[in-house]
Amino acid sequence: MRPLLSLAVSEACGDDRPELSDAVAVAIELLHCASLVHDDLPCFDGADTRRGRPSVHAAFGEPLAVLVGDGLIVMAFECLARAGSGAPERLVPLIRTLSASAGASTGLVAGQAWESEVDPDLEAYHRAKTGSLFTAATLGGALAAGADPARWQALGDRLGEAYQVADDLRDAVSSPEELGKPARQDEALERPNAVATLGLMGALERLHMLLRQASDAVPDCPGARGLRELVQLQAKRLIPKKLAQSAA
Amino acid sequence: MRPLLSLAVSEACGDDRPELSDAVAVAIELLHCASLVHDDLPCFDGADTRRGRPSVHAAFGEPLAVLVGDGLIVMAFECLARAGSGAPERLVPLIRTLSASAGASTGLVAGQAWESEVDPDLEAYHRAKTGSLFTAATLGGALAAGADPARWQALGDRLGEAYQVADDLRDAVSSPEELGKPARQDEALERPNAVATLGLMGALERLHMLLRQASDAVPDCPGARGLRELVQLQAKRLIPKKLAQSAA
Repeated sequence: MRPLLSLAVSEACGDDRPELSDAVAVAIELLHCASLVHDDLPCFDGADTRRGRPSVHAAFGEPLAVLVGDGLIVMAFECLARAGSGAPERLVPLIRTLSASAGASTGLVAGQAWESEVDPDLEAYHRAKTGSLFTAATLGGALAAGADPARWQALGDRLGEAYQVADDLRDAVSSPEELGKPARQDEALERPNAVATLGLMGALERLHMLLRQASDAVPDCPGARGLRELVQLQAKRLIPKKLAQSAA
Repeated sequence: MRPLLSLAVSEACGDDRPELSDAVAVAIELLHCASLVHDDLPCFDGADTRRGRPSVHAAFGEPLAVLVGDGLIVMAFECLARAGSGAPERLVPLIRTLSASAGASTGLVAGQAWESEVDPDLEAYHRAKTGSLFTAATLGGALAAGADPARWQALGDRLGEAYQVADDLRDAVSSPEELGKPARQDEALERPNAVATLGLMGALERLHMLLRQASDAVPDCPGARGLRELVQLQAKRLIPKKLAQSAA
């Protein structure tokens, strides 16, 4: 979903450097995958399955899983640099945006670290762990096309929040087979999550509100309609089937 | 040593962008530190001390040590981008050079992964695990100053090899107090190393040869004398005290 979002924003902004837009989408997915591989490690979630298959450490051992995560982070930046030779001045804000979304102050690393805290701020935790990469997708998509990223901040922020709430809902109501990974992990690991804080219906209400806000946050531009459709499409995917009726 | 080398090469190449030369030196050290933090993890060396103090996982637990390594890798690229705004065209080769030295094909990640192999090629293993960051230091130092990096390859290659052989020698003959970390780890973990392959005296001979070659590899330039002095100075540091007499 993150690369789709990034490509859709580049497209809406004119996409004059498609090789760079592609690289941003790829880099965002690589950073996301790196975080999944490391999150699955025994010292974090200890998840033996991911996307219905053995997780990296379950298949290849812990040492290689640590290294795979490291290698994917490096590859994300390599990929940007490789594609940026035609417009190197765009690399500076792109790398700063992606590193902020992945790093230890406000990004994925910060989000994962919040899990080590006893009573973390749910919003700050979600913003760093999940929201950061969605925001990077909209800002990065705009920057790759040479557009002003500020107009695209709100769309990424709202979608990121929506995705995290949806993830918490799915974790609470789905089976491991539906998820392709262990279920009820938030409860089992006592991780901060929207269902624990707001209850099932409260979390579902919040998800709907965030998706409306995301749709409203698409700025006026030639590609606005397509982007709003993308948000609607993702909304259908995000709301767990079991809860879809109460969603109507 | 790696940042010193990188700064010395930038200096020898005219150093017209000192903020970028500094950033390259810092980024190289950050990547190096990331690899140390992850190498010390229980699933690799399981080293509880580093530089005479508790290693990161020993002090703060495994989850935070994994995240610290990830955060340091991200920070290395962020640091380059931040300093590169005045000369963004230099960012492309710089990031490609540093990511090659850190990544999964030829860099630190590849080097560490060789340790999971039963009978790895000692030279390829050392080149990836240690040499890559020394070569990145000389190439990166030249690139930061807008110079042709090709002339600086051999110096980095030889110093990297020398450093790894010296590290193997120190591991074999030093006490944990002298090292600030556990000793005899190569033997204990059956890791490929120069002492096991060449014997103590063979490894020492090889170290001397590599240091001579490094000194000879300094290309003609205004800063050549200073760089050769740096190599000599490091040579004194690299040869374990116990072996220094037989070195004379």
